[in-house]
Amino acid sequence: MQDAAAQQGQISLDELNAADEAAFVAALGGIYEHSPWVAEEAARHRPFVSLAALHAAMAEAVRAAPAERQLALVRDHPDLAGKAARAGNLTVASVAEQAGAGLDRLTEEEFAAFHRLNGAYADKFGFPFIVCVRRLTKESILKAFARRIENGREAEIATALDEIGRIAALRLDETVTAPDRLPVHGRLSTHVLDTQGGHPARSVAVELVELAQAGPFRTVARAVTNADGRTDAPLISGRPLPSGRYELRFHVGAYFAAGGAVLADPPFLDVVPVAFGIAEAEGYYHVPLLVTPWSFTTYRGS
Amino acid sequence: MQDAAAQQGQISLDELNAADEAAFVAALGGIYEHSPWVAEEAARHRPFVSLAALHAAMAEAVRAAPAERQLALVRDHPDLAGKAARAGNLTVASVAEQAGAGLDRLTEEEFAAFHRLNGAYADKFGFPFIVCVRRLTKESILKAFARRIENGREAEIATALDEIGRIAALRLDETVTAPDRLPVHGRLSTHVLDTQGGHPARSVAVELVELAQAGPFRTVARAVTNADGRTDAPLISGRPLPSGRYELRFHVGAYFAAGGAVLADPPFLDVVPVAFGIAEAEGYYHVPLLVTPWSFTTYRGS
Amino acid sequence: MQDAAAQQGQISLDELNAADEAAFVAALGGIYEHSPWVAEEAARHRPFVSLAALHAAMAEAVRAAPAERQLALVRDHPDLAGKAARAGNLTVASVAEQAGAGLDRLTEEEFAAFHRLNGAYADKFGFPFIVCVRRLTKESILKAFARRIENGREAEIATALDEIGRIAALRLDETVTAPDRLPVHGRLSTHVLDTQGGHPARSVAVELVELAQAGPFRTVARAVTNADGRTDAPLISGRPLPSGRYELRFHVGAYFAAGGAVLADPPFLDVVPVAFGIAEAEGYYHVPLLVTPWSFTTYRGS
Amino acid sequence: MQDAAAQQGQISLDELNAADEAAFVAALGGIYEHSPWVAEEAARHRPFVSLAALHAAMAEAVRAAPAERQLALVRDHPDLAGKAARAGNLTVASVAEQAGAGLDRLTEEEFAAFHRLNGAYADKFGFPFIVCVRRLTKESILKAFARRIENGREAEIATALDEIGRIAALRLDETVTAPDRLPVHGRLSTHVLDTQGGHPARSVAVELVELAQAGPFRTVARAVTNADGRTDAPLISGRPLPSGRYELRFHVGAYFAAGGAVLADPPFLDVVPVAFGIAEAEGYYHVPLLVTPWSFTTYRGS
Repeated sequence: MQDAAAQQGQISLDELNAADEAAFVAALGGIYEHSPWVAEEAARHRPFVSLAALHAAMAEAVRAAPAERQLALVRDHPDLAGKAARAGNLTVASVAEQAGAGLDRLTEEEFAAFHRLNGAYADKFGFPFIVCVRRLTKESILKAFARRIENGREAEIATALDEIGRIAALRLDETVTAPDRLPVHGRLSTHVLDTQGGHPARSVAVELVELAQAGPFRTVARAVTNADGRTDAPLISGRPLPSGRYELRFHVGAYFAAGGAVLADPPFLDVVPVAFGIAEAEGYYHVPLLVTPWSFTTYRGS
Repeated sequence: MQDAAAQQGQISLDELNAADEAAFVAALGGIYEHSPWVAEEAARHRPFVSLAALHAAMAEAVRAAPAERQLALVRDHPDLAGKAARAGNLTVASVAEQAGAGLDRLTEEEFAAFHRLNGAYADKFGFPFIVCVRRLTKESILKAFARRIENGREAEIATALDEIGRIAALRLDETVTAPDRLPVHGRLSTHVLDTQGGHPARSVAVELVELAQAGPFRTVARAVTNADGRTDAPLISGRPLPSGRYELRFHVGAYFAAGGAVLADPPFLDVVPVAFGIAEAEGYYHVPLLVTPWSFTTYRGS
Repeated sequence: MQDAAAQQGQISLDELNAADEAAFVAALGGIYEHSPWVAEEAARHRPFVSLAALHAAMAEAVRAAPAERQLALVRDHPDLAGKAARAGNLTVASVAEQAGAGLDRLTEEEFAAFHRLNGAYADKFGFPFIVCVRRLTKESILKAFARRIENGREAEIATALDEIGRIAALRLDETVTAPDRLPVHGRLSTHVLDTQGGHPARSVAVELVELAQAGPFRTVARAVTNADGRTDAPLISGRPLPSGRYELRFHVGAYFAAGGAVLADPPFLDVVPVAFGIAEAEGYYHVPLLVTPWSFTTYRGS
Repeated sequence: MQDAAAQQGQISLDELNAADEAAFVAALGGIYEHSPWVAEEAARHRPFVSLAALHAAMAEAVRAAPAERQLALVRDHPDLAGKAARAGNLTVASVAEQAGAGLDRLTEEEFAAFHRLNGAYADKFGFPFIVCVRRLTKESILKAFARRIENGREAEIATALDEIGRIAALRLDETVTAPDRLPVHGRLSTHVLDTQGGHPARSVAVELVELAQAGPFRTVARAVTNADGRTDAPLISGRPLPSGRYELRFHVGAYFAAGGAVLADPPFLDVVPVAFGIAEAEGYYHVPLLVTPWSFTTYRGS
């Protein structure tokens, strides 16, 4: 999406307010997939005092549209991890989004599962399965797919429009520069305290791994703690936290050994896994570790 | 080994003290692999007031033997996970012991690693690699193998005799009934406290998994906590704790959900892994969990 | 109460079942204060298969008695911490019980508070305030007094009879030897783990102090942890846990200094107070400490 | 000291660099008690590029002074908590500093102890006991007094000059405005996490109490946690942390009750005391509480 935004170019809210309608629609026509009419509708409500106001106007345009137009919007989306993706027939934004969730690197089994679900879903509803893939891990996408295919048609259209709104908000936040930002980002951070020494644990290697029922696991982030026991940047920030299951792995055995501790072989604690779930894609998760060579405490902090 | 003991039959210390030498040697001739002379030597020192005294007499017989006899004792052991095992040419005791460590279920890669190490070790030292396999996990056996092959010959003969002594002590403890026991067993236990409710956590499913560099992991024990938050029996007891890396997995998400908690999807804590190392095969390890839906603490307890 | 029991002598359930009525009443006539009729009534239901059955028979005798007889039983109790106590006009059992709660060592202010409450209570209800003093701390007795004086008369008679039943159960449990015991005892224990060293903390001095709004605090127990990090005996056992507020004080600074740690002056942790409340007089409270020189965890354990 | 600074007026480093010598000495003549010669000496080294450079020049003037002049500087200080204080014969700065440590509110016993120590110290050394009272609690001042009176004379003169340097640095930091600050301040903060609910604990009343061997204790700060579980401002900041013993008291019983929890009477945890020592007056101490109604964890954080 970063690439997509760069390629598409960013534009300021002031420029959008000052632009003629054609330029406005050229800039924002792709916020809703293949549906420049949303931008056209919103353009009439200029000027916008904030990005939030622009976003509200676009969302209102969709909400107020006739049912058949809403349905067309839904239908204009590509299959998830489908043949179009393999064939290269996606919009630039969709390519980046699907890649971010790992949907461009499926095993044969996963591709088969998506293919089967795509088919069953299209047979039942007559439109593709839509989900804001940047807000879920691959495992969670598959779980949501299996769950939503059991819904009724009206509920599913409503859900699809909700997801389209989430996709649009993320695209808008990245396309338009403005003093305000949309609340579309989460943050995941950690902090390691050496409670044997009573000070922050420096130089602890930390990995964040995305869990999945059927591996392999995907390493999402690697970092080393600084003098304050924190990582220089959050493990995830500036984007939604894909909802799903994770494991933080803290290399505390190496840390204590480097500090001169004589550890048993194998040490009681070496690489400490902390498994946790993220349910709020726009939430703040702080997962610290208080650790000695013989004990540790972890919790959802703030 | 249980099977081996049953097959071989158990005998009491009193019976051993009263037996004629042939019966004594028949009963204990297999304690040292293919070496009834150790039992013959010990038989002269009867009566034994305790199992410890019998054990000491047999160990002393080995210690006092000439170097060539000690070396023959070493040579009389089979290869670990070697062709003899596959061909069925092991003593009953050795079969049971190697199976206990998972050496009868090697992947092709592992079998190849053992085969290669067995060959290199025999070429260097002229005798087989001996280790008390019941005191190590498969991963730890391979690590010890790779480390010990770097030793000098004298050091390695001494190490092999130490390991033979450990194997003999375990066999003796299982073969002879006596008021005292040899200190050859460890114990691993756990305890789950619900610090949200302030009481023991009942009905928490717990698994003990043996970790390995290259999976698959082996589930060593499964249990469910009782009203006191403990498992009815220790996770491991009545045998050495194979030194190596483990993971306890506590199914706390299901526990809190069963208690009526409304958890997020996915829950912050679901299956909590606690990874730890065991270094003392005869030690007591207590690894408790203090847990709420949002935090946990674990430590080496007592 | 220990003294009282010794003075009064203990008697076995078998002896009670075999005794003539006069001896039975002589032995149990004091279980209900100044009311041998309860024992007389119960005597008819012999033999008793258990202490619980004997207790039930005596409780039933009170429950089935006419209201005026119940009221007389209530009236036959002494004032709490009243003039009778100072003048020495209490039964031996009452003296011991009141002393156990510290009611024999009141400050002038506390004596005045009891005197005032005794008077107000007697004026309102026409009978003395009765509470099983062994189940409450002095502070909790005063709080209960102030709260119950607001009750209506019928509720207060019922409460007084409940408390008389609790007093009787405790006296009975101490007077009669039998295979079963009445569930009238609680237990308070602790456990100190050194999570810096990964082992039990040995030789830690521990004090249990009873808190009070207006000091001075009363030290209830002193102990030193053994090699397992526990005290050789529970801090309280074999009696009810007086419900109220407490503080455990763990001398961990001295412990870590004795182990060779170089601590700051003053150390971050020195005497660690853990304040907690006991609400269940017959409950089991385990209050452990997991501690390093820089951190600690405590919880209600099991 | 705040008052003192305000009364004396603040002056900028630029103004000091530009001032004539008389004005410079008028502004800084009181930094070293009754010793304007230190400022006179430093004035020659202008301009100063930073407050640190000015501080270093004044400290060097003292260090380079002849022994008799140093001794005169020591002698020019008042007794601690002495008759001069009661009679009002102190400099404005000294009055504020002694009041900050509670030396203006001594019990008769404490006044007697100071009086006795002042006399013994003056008899032995011929100069008053000097300590930077803003860096110690009252209890710690008395302990230092009792310890230092055992020193030899040379060591004690050196210690007195060190303490005078600390007093001067604090006065200088408050008198002179400059882009840089002297490292004379510490910080104490806290943070309360509700690990039952998995979020910061809001509206928890917290008190910071200074402990003392012989009470009464002094409440140093009161605060209530905000939505982030922190206090709006650190409990202590912008000044040294007086080294000594403290207790944080967290009113968690009221917090959980306000959140709808049904707690026992008395609750297991109500007002949670966390006792800790501060040894580094210029250090950062963060003392958080992770708490449920049945457990808590605390540690020196960062």
